[in-house]
Amino acid sequence: MAIHVYWASGSPYSWRVLLALEFKGVPYVSHQLQLSKQEHKSPQMLAMTPRGRLPVVKHDDYVVFESLAILYYLDLKYPEPPLFGRSAEEAGVIVRVIEEYQAYAEEHLMSIVESVFTARGAPLREEITDAMHVVASEARTIEARLSTKGDWIVGEAVSAADLMIYPSIQLLLRALAQPTARELSARFLPLDTNYPALGRWMERMRSLPGFERTYPPHWRAS
Amino acid sequence: MAIHVYWASGSPYSWRVLLALEFKGVPYVSHQLQLSKQEHKSPQMLAMTPRGRLPVVKHDDYVVFESLAILYYLDLKYPEPPLFGRSAEEAGVIVRVIEEYQAYAEEHLMSIVESVFTARGAPLREEITDAMHVVASEARTIEARLSTKGDWIVGEAVSAADLMIYPSIQLLLRALAQPTARELSARFLPLDTNYPALGRWMERMRSLPGFERTYPPHWRAS
Repeated sequence: MAIHVYWASGSPYSWRVLLALEFKGVPYVSHQLQLSKQEHKSPQMLAMTPRGRLPVVKHDDYVVFESLAILYYLDLKYPEPPLFGRSAEEAGVIVRVIEEYQAYAEEHLMSIVESVFTARGAPLREEITDAMHVVASEARTIEARLSTKGDWIVGEAVSAADLMIYPSIQLLLRALAQPTARELSARFLPLDTNYPALGRWMERMRSLPGFERTYPPHWRAS
Repeated sequence: MAIHVYWASGSPYSWRVLLALEFKGVPYVSHQLQLSKQEHKSPQMLAMTPRGRLPVVKHDDYVVFESLAILYYLDLKYPEPPLFGRSAEEAGVIVRVIEEYQAYAEEHLMSIVESVFTARGAPLREEITDAMHVVASEARTIEARLSTKGDWIVGEAVSAADLMIYPSIQLLLRALAQPTARELSARFLPLDTNYPALGRWMERMRSLPGFERTYPPHWRAS
């Protein structure tokens, strides 16, 4: 009856699932794969996840991938504490906020990250400034939620919305800390000044039980 | 206790929600808005949906938007027949397939549609051919599911996966039927030859109870 998780260090998609398992207190067997060695494209992995993407969860004979689908599966298998709310109304807002994040913010955020980490000292492309504007605007919306509606992104408790969004923002902050991103980061940071409620929420996320076990190992080393 | 639906004719996102309501047999008050008159940007609408996007569902005092969130809310309020499966395992696959559609296909499909309907006789941009390749590849994956796993995209029954994907494919076919898209459409059509299982599934979708009431009215007129 073991849950196996296949994941990569630094992948925000993977991090969501580790956070969910720790949040639920569900024991799991951790398989950290090395993307640089193409371990996620092995025949064994491709048999589970044809696109060769991580994370993947294997629970006995059942395989599920795409982080939101994994969170939803885990929530139905291990209902307490819930990740998708305690009522249809809460559930609707949680999925709405996740869908908004995915539809309007994620692509831009990931393009900034990719651009910073592949630039190797070259100037960033101009579109990245536009992407930063979009991300800043979406961050302001989340800031407004957190400063008026409570400690967590939706409602009074941690939900799938927090777990879906947190790892990506942490990754963005890591990208903006690179020397090549200095000019770009001035459009977003400092967090404490520009997005104080978001900053406090990130601290709350870091104090969740089990958080330390989910922190990307190669981020610690560097 | 009325459910109000605010929607636009021809919007695949809106169509999903109308299909879900008919599928559930839930009575609703229909508000068709005219995008050309900016009715979705009225103060009343922006109070409900700050991005001014459709569809929106208002159930008594509760407002929900983003089509997947609406489907999820409706499924929790009116559980039979279910849209997200009858087990955690089914639910995981349904959300996984929806997430894959949204992450890997939707943006490309919508860029083709937008390109065709705004081209007004001018040659289509070259990137659209690339988008068509991606969409064709994703369509082959769905074709493979439908030709090996059953009548519906996931499992033995209609699910949110069918309702999320069908309207967009129907919109794509409408775009590909435009004279300016002749060359592009040759990379995808005819459906009966290239995607026969997909074609049969689309016929099954059209025979769902209430389907006719959801069909975009301005498509009938033209």
